[in-house]
Amino acid sequence: MGVTLTDIETDEDAAARARTTVYVCVTCRRPGDPEDAPRPGLTLACGAAKAAEGTGVSVCQVECLANCSRSLSAAMRCDGTWTYIFGGLDPERDAEALIEGAQLLAHADDGILPWRGRPEVLKRGLIARVPPFDFASSNSKEETE
Amino acid sequence: MGVTLTDIETDEDAAARARTTVYVCVTCRRPGDPEDAPRPGLTLACGAAKAAEGTGVSVCQVECLANCSRSLSAAMRCDGTWTYIFGGLDPERDAEALIEGAQLLAHADDGILPWRGRPEVLKRGLIARVPPFDFASSNSKEETE
Repeated sequence: MGVTLTDIETDEDAAARARTTVYVCVTCRRPGDPEDAPRPGLTLACGAAKAAEGTGVSVCQVECLANCSRSLSAAMRCDGTWTYIFGGLDPERDAEALIEGAQLLAHADDGILPWRGRPEVLKRGLIARVPPFDFASSNSKEETE
Repeated sequence: MGVTLTDIETDEDAAARARTTVYVCVTCRRPGDPEDAPRPGLTLACGAAKAAEGTGVSVCQVECLANCSRSLSAAMRCDGTWTYIFGGLDPERDAEALIEGAQLLAHADDGILPWRGRPEVLKRGLIARVPPFDFASSNSKEETE
């Protein structure tokens, strides 16, 4: 009995870390945006939720990730991984990059979002990262290729 | 038999959230610091560890919190609370404020670091915050007094 492509995909899904979550700030607006206009953060959150369909990634709307000076903002983490915060996101362009990044993180054995292969906006838009609770100080390679 | 001050303190300790942790970036240096000089991030980490003695707060040294442009950097969280990232910290001045903030967070019923009573440097130095996994969107009051 051979291994089918479907089997492989199922194995990969099972290997992904639990509770892969993208948090999108829905109060974020860009400098100069009118106070009463629809918030571009909400547009980004809705786009991310659409891009996440069928991936196992949860998208969670948050009021304020406190990265207001470098908005739009989003964060991501899975069980046992580092937490990443991103800024300077574009509501129309970056929803898919967030989900792609979350999937990369979910499959990272060391809990660190790989630099190589990471969507460009998740390189230049990196605001900060925080280790998981069970962090061992030997596992903190710096944020470069 | 009366209640002694020691009893009260013990009760308060028991009410604090588990795994209260401050992460300090030990690779951080300020713009203009020589590459080979002792890292001020390490000075901050050692000061924080000393300030944490007897408080139940753990201080964890991390190589790179990826907040390099606004260093020195530290983060804090407890089980079930929001995670906070701070920048612009001073190695000689801000170790105690970090531990004070972590203790405030550990006693916050809603898992949110209170704005009122928070050390000033943890207001003006706030870089970002990320909710806990069990986050309910109704619990995300904005970052103001």
